[in-house]
Amino acid sequence: MVEPVGNHYVIARPVYSENAFNEEHEKVHRYHKTFWDHLKLYFSCSSQRVKKIALGLFPVVSWLPAYRFREWILSDIVSGINTGLVAVLQGLAFALLVNVPPSYGLYAAFFPVLVYFIFGTSRHISVGPFPVLSLMVGGVVTRLVPDDSAGIGNSTNTSAIDNERVMVAASVTFLSGVFQLLLGIFQFGFIVIYLSQSLISGFTTAAAIHVLVSQLKFMFQLPVPGFNKPFGIIYTLESVFSQITDTNIADLVTSLIVLLIVFVVKEMNDRYKEKLPTPIPIELLVTVLAALISHFVDFEKKFNVAVVGKLEEGFQAPVAPDVGILQKCIADGFSIAIVGFAVAFSVAKVYSIKHDYPIDGNQDLIAFGLGNIVGGSFKGFASSTALSRSGVQESTGGKTQIAGIVSSVIVLIVILAIGFLLAPLQKSVLASLALGNLKGMLMQFKEVHVLWRKDKYDCVIWVVTFIAAVLLGLDIGLATAVAFQLLTVVIRSQFPSCTVLANVGRSNIYRNRKDYTDIYEPEGVKIFKCSSPIFFANVEFFREKLITAVGFNPLRVLRKRNKALRKIRKMLKKGELQVTPKGLICTASPTYESDEELDNNRIEELDQPTIMTDLPIRINWATDLPPGITVPQVNIHSIILDFSSVSFLDFSAMTVLRKILKEFVRLDIDIYIAGAYEGLLDKLERSAFFDEEIKPSMFFLTIHDAVLHILLKKDIASSPKLKLAEVTLQSSSFITLCLYSIARLQTVLCTAIAVCATLSLFSKR
Amino acid sequence: MVEPVGNHYVIARPVYSENAFNEEHEKVHRYHKTFWDHLKLYFSCSSQRVKKIALGLFPVVSWLPAYRFREWILSDIVSGINTGLVAVLQGLAFALLVNVPPSYGLYAAFFPVLVYFIFGTSRHISVGPFPVLSLMVGGVVTRLVPDDSAGIGNSTNTSAIDNERVMVAASVTFLSGVFQLLLGIFQFGFIVIYLSQSLISGFTTAAAIHVLVSQLKFMFQLPVPGFNKPFGIIYTLESVFSQITDTNIADLVTSLIVLLIVFVVKEMNDRYKEKLPTPIPIELLVTVLAALISHFVDFEKKFNVAVVGKLEEGFQAPVAPDVGILQKCIADGFSIAIVGFAVAFSVAKVYSIKHDYPIDGNQDLIAFGLGNIVGGSFKGFASSTALSRSGVQESTGGKTQIAGIVSSVIVLIVILAIGFLLAPLQKSVLASLALGNLKGMLMQFKEVHVLWRKDKYDCVIWVVTFIAAVLLGLDIGLATAVAFQLLTVVIRSQFPSCTVLANVGRSNIYRNRKDYTDIYEPEGVKIFKCSSPIFFANVEFFREKLITAVGFNPLRVLRKRNKALRKIRKMLKKGELQVTPKGLICTASPTYESDEELDNNRIEELDQPTIMTDLPIRINWATDLPPGITVPQVNIHSIILDFSSVSFLDFSAMTVLRKILKEFVRLDIDIYIAGAYEGLLDKLERSAFFDEEIKPSMFFLTIHDAVLHILLKKDIASSPKLKLAEVTLQSSSFITLCLYSIARLQTVLCTAIAVCATLSLFSKR
Repeated sequence: MVEPVGNHYVIARPVYSENAFNEEHEKVHRYHKTFWDHLKLYFSCSSQRVKKIALGLFPVVSWLPAYRFREWILSDIVSGINTGLVAVLQGLAFALLVNVPPSYGLYAAFFPVLVYFIFGTSRHISVGPFPVLSLMVGGVVTRLVPDDSAGIGNSTNTSAIDNERVMVAASVTFLSGVFQLLLGIFQFGFIVIYLSQSLISGFTTAAAIHVLVSQLKFMFQLPVPGFNKPFGIIYTLESVFSQITDTNIADLVTSLIVLLIVFVVKEMNDRYKEKLPTPIPIELLVTVLAALISHFVDFEKKFNVAVVGKLEEGFQAPVAPDVGILQKCIADGFSIAIVGFAVAFSVAKVYSIKHDYPIDGNQDLIAFGLGNIVGGSFKGFASSTALSRSGVQESTGGKTQIAGIVSSVIVLIVILAIGFLLAPLQKSVLASLALGNLKGMLMQFKEVHVLWRKDKYDCVIWVVTFIAAVLLGLDIGLATAVAFQLLTVVIRSQFPSCTVLANVGRSNIYRNRKDYTDIYEPEGVKIFKCSSPIFFANVEFFREKLITAVGFNPLRVLRKRNKALRKIRKMLKKGELQVTPKGLICTASPTYESDEELDNNRIEELDQPTIMTDLPIRINWATDLPPGITVPQVNIHSIILDFSSVSFLDFSAMTVLRKILKEFVRLDIDIYIAGAYEGLLDKLERSAFFDEEIKPSMFFLTIHDAVLHILLKKDIASSPKLKLAEVTLQSSSFITLCLYSIARLQTVLCTAIAVCATLSLFSKR
Repeated sequence: MVEPVGNHYVIARPVYSENAFNEEHEKVHRYHKTFWDHLKLYFSCSSQRVKKIALGLFPVVSWLPAYRFREWILSDIVSGINTGLVAVLQGLAFALLVNVPPSYGLYAAFFPVLVYFIFGTSRHISVGPFPVLSLMVGGVVTRLVPDDSAGIGNSTNTSAIDNERVMVAASVTFLSGVFQLLLGIFQFGFIVIYLSQSLISGFTTAAAIHVLVSQLKFMFQLPVPGFNKPFGIIYTLESVFSQITDTNIADLVTSLIVLLIVFVVKEMNDRYKEKLPTPIPIELLVTVLAALISHFVDFEKKFNVAVVGKLEEGFQAPVAPDVGILQKCIADGFSIAIVGFAVAFSVAKVYSIKHDYPIDGNQDLIAFGLGNIVGGSFKGFASSTALSRSGVQESTGGKTQIAGIVSSVIVLIVILAIGFLLAPLQKSVLASLALGNLKGMLMQFKEVHVLWRKDKYDCVIWVVTFIAAVLLGLDIGLATAVAFQLLTVVIRSQFPSCTVLANVGRSNIYRNRKDYTDIYEPEGVKIFKCSSPIFFANVEFFREKLITAVGFNPLRVLRKRNKALRKIRKMLKKGELQVTPKGLICTASPTYESDEELDNNRIEELDQPTIMTDLPIRINWATDLPPGITVPQVNIHSIILDFSSVSFLDFSAMTVLRKILKEFVRLDIDIYIAGAYEGLLDKLERSAFFDEEIKPSMFFLTIHDAVLHILLKKDIASSPKLKLAEVTLQSSSFITLCLYSIARLQTVLCTAIAVCATLSLFSKR
């Protein structure tokens, strides 16, 4: 980037209208693909294409051979172990949110990871249970299998209820997997482009709030039911604070200590990143320590803290989902599918931007779909990615999904062998570990301020998304946010800045006339720019602004003129007016009839063009009127619409535009359109936009072309013969014109000699 | 509109970057109103403003004094009588849809008209009952007061149920009126700008279908319950056709005869519009005739047809709505308010466009709200406008709401005096009369074809609106249609046409290089145009298209170069490379090391700029590489982004754009932005968009300015001294340059003399 070299340039070319330009420059006939061509192309089949699609279905085939073993394996293993431990802890914690025994959470943390390793495209997300999804599944579970209402609570009954609940969770998970798979296969991953950065940021922050609130019950050790409905977070908080006096102090203290340790050590890890060979695996240390202390001090008995308890060991045989349950939770399945994918993809997108690699929405949908189908079959529950766990995987140096595989090995070990060691661990420790990883997501609050400075609309999107997702729940909140975001795109274009332009610096540059002092507005010419597409929501706005800019309502003026014309006809008939070469001369004293009487015309005829063929002369509205007849003065003869920013016109816009143009044309005002996008002329011709009043010759290449055309036309019209009906133009006399020409010629010559080197660069070599 | 005068123009001015231009031309400092200023202005108060608002609240004050009595009164009376009769008939018919006794339909056709006369802004709509609204109210009625399930059916019980039902209908009407009034007071009438022409057309056509289906039960005389839910129309049709064998043939025959007569006479009215002094009031004639025949032939007893029966005479005392009922139908009240207003306003808009007068959404909301509040208090039910009845009012020559007042007088007469005369009238006659007026609305089907030709998106909006409104019901259908319509605005901008431009005709005109034969692309310069705003939904598309246009992925090239640089450093260290004035010379035999080994860099560093300060020379990537080292060839040195159609950039777009620009800058490619909208530069500066790599000096006024700047810069760079690291430019030798200059000078001189008259026009006079 170099500062501009202050040189001059010279342009000498004809004044081009679109038509003239296209006559002079041959246009290549191109075949534009139709909808059917695209469709055919889409469904065409070649061996190469099949291979590409097949490879795309198994991303692991592409990235695994390129794995930089020596360089990455250590990081991946460290990260995998950390993540695996967190996955174990979260699996246990989130299973409680689903209202199923803890060990099922481990299945949810195991199977989807294996599937995602093969099918997924993100390298950094840790697939597995996600608290909000768990809460949603838990909502279905408590709805379909409510708490033992009889309150008998014997062990066989409890275990039967648990089995039923596991079945419900597994079925709804299976169903959401099917939805995700179908969406992925039918390439509906494109929905993710409607998740803008601001929206994702607001949404993930809201999700972090949900996680935080959902973990409160474990930190305080309070019995809080799941609220799966709008404003559920408020009910949860209400429930927590109404019971706050029942807090288990031992749990709260443990939580706060763990939180403090995790937070401080993580900060140190960040600060001394360069000096540490590998970040301190603080989650691992804290968990081991906490389990040991709890075991030897016997917290469970002494302080009545909640502990993980005995885990079931080994796997369960896969089951087919229950069709009866499936029918009852179609809507839940769909919203779980969408929220699960939206959360996972938004987190994946954050990391893909940070580490710069592509991710594929459709492929990830397939990966999550298959993951949930497999997970559901093995009695796991819906998986996505936990923000906190993905944070662990990435921040402890995970490079690829090898870390995921390592983490699943850890989960496997816990499932098969050492689950019993976790039995004395406090649930509040699990909660604190999860919270310790939310910092990054919560820090996104700082973005609001930055966004407000950069783009108000994006800031509003962030806030609306956040509030909607926090209050309405992640599913409805997301839908609301996306709808709101689409609305902002419309609103941004709805009030375009409409400006009147003027020539700045007497060359071919036209800018807002209010912005510069050194401006020149050609007399009687209005140059009007609309800076957005014109469509149903802003075409009336455009019309109003144009009328404000020209200073009169053309329809009203047309009506007044027609009225005056009728009066003149009447007066001519009565002989009160005489036609002379100089115009109309009134022979009678002006009568000043009431307007009312002359108004007896039918509404429908009012906007017809003024027809003067039956009159002996043309009437010059600016000067010729007999006394007693007045029409509004129109002090412009041409309007140029700068369409260079108008990127499309819809049907409403075309209809209204045509109407406005006609109104002006009927006032003998020439309208020109400059800088229209390629294809607009064709589209208008197809739409029967043009007739004998509105012609394609109104299209000019640039504003300057149109202005020069107008000036030349008016000069020719006003010089040779004086037409009566022509708007008077302050014509420059021939002498001043010649004098000026000579002065200008000098400038041109000097400039030409100085700069024709530039032009030479522009020739073919 | 005159064909362009084929003259030339000459421009001689400096090459302007935005900065240079703003230095040369003083900018006026303007105070831009902030949000708070607007708010203050909005709530400012002056006596004039108060007067204007007060007048606006009572539109009748403005239009009644301007009433053209002699001219309009006859039309209004004729229209009013016709409309009044239809209003009576429809009132009776639609009351049956609400499941209340017929006379209450007359109240619904009376009170709101009076209120609308004072407060309404449309001149042609006939306010009163509307079948779909009636069906919706009927849905609430049957839900809250179900049919007498015990089936006792004695008269006291029936009358008690009827009273309850009237109370429910009145309460829900009152509630919807309150909603409308509130929406109107808080200026929420703006929602109507989201109803585009295509949407209104599709919606009213769907409403016509609903009316048609709702009248079938009366034509066939079948007992069909009201279905107030999605796909209700299908249930209704199913119900009709499952009972089709029970059709009362007498009713069907009457219906068909009436329909035929009405249709034919209406066609004749249309065709001989000019010759007839007033349209034949066929509805009136048919009704009187049918009532007479039915009475004297005694259809009721002979053929068991359904007749209107005895009407209650006189008015009922006003009642307060039942709070208990109100609480149960808040959602219904809101949807009735919205649908009622949407239907009425869309019809009003059709007539306001046809007859060209302004209507005010907020004022109409207030008018309908007050109308429903008054109507509900007097035990009427929700009113809007019936499409058919408004059709009658307009087509029989109604000019203002005076016709409405006349029609309400007719209703009043029927209520107070002659109701008994209508007792023998068949219900099927009422239905046929309503259907006879649907033609205009149903003819809108023809628009689909026209829309497809004019604008595909608008055609899709029509079809989606129609299908949604028919199948999902008018309330949900309308919401769906509006949401879909907003989505189309986004989609229109989502896949902008991104084109590579080239100079056409060797002047300052740049067009799509594929479209013209006579094109010139400056060597090493890509001119890329994006023809829409850039925002979250299309910024990735923009990025991809730009990468396709330049032919390489800048990030990939940068990585390859960084890799090559590391290799060169290594070779220099080993002494395998020697630095000579001509470049690097390799002294060792090329080793062709495996790429893998050199790849041991951390991902995070990959997109850093190539730093060569530690090397003894700058490396020319196009030529200088030692054997064994390859980088992708980059054959461009400058990119110009034409932003003239980019009407806004959102935060996502700014972030991604900045990233792309940086990538190119780090490849030593100069990026220029031409024709950006006013204010973009300020906005980017506020957003901390610029740094030492991306500078505001990249902004140029036009593409041509940027191209000349590039050519001059490259020429200067390549001529005086040969820099090693500069991209080789095929420089024209000084001699050919001079020769060309002379030849070009001649052209310039001739042109200049011929056209400087043009320029003189451009000076101050």
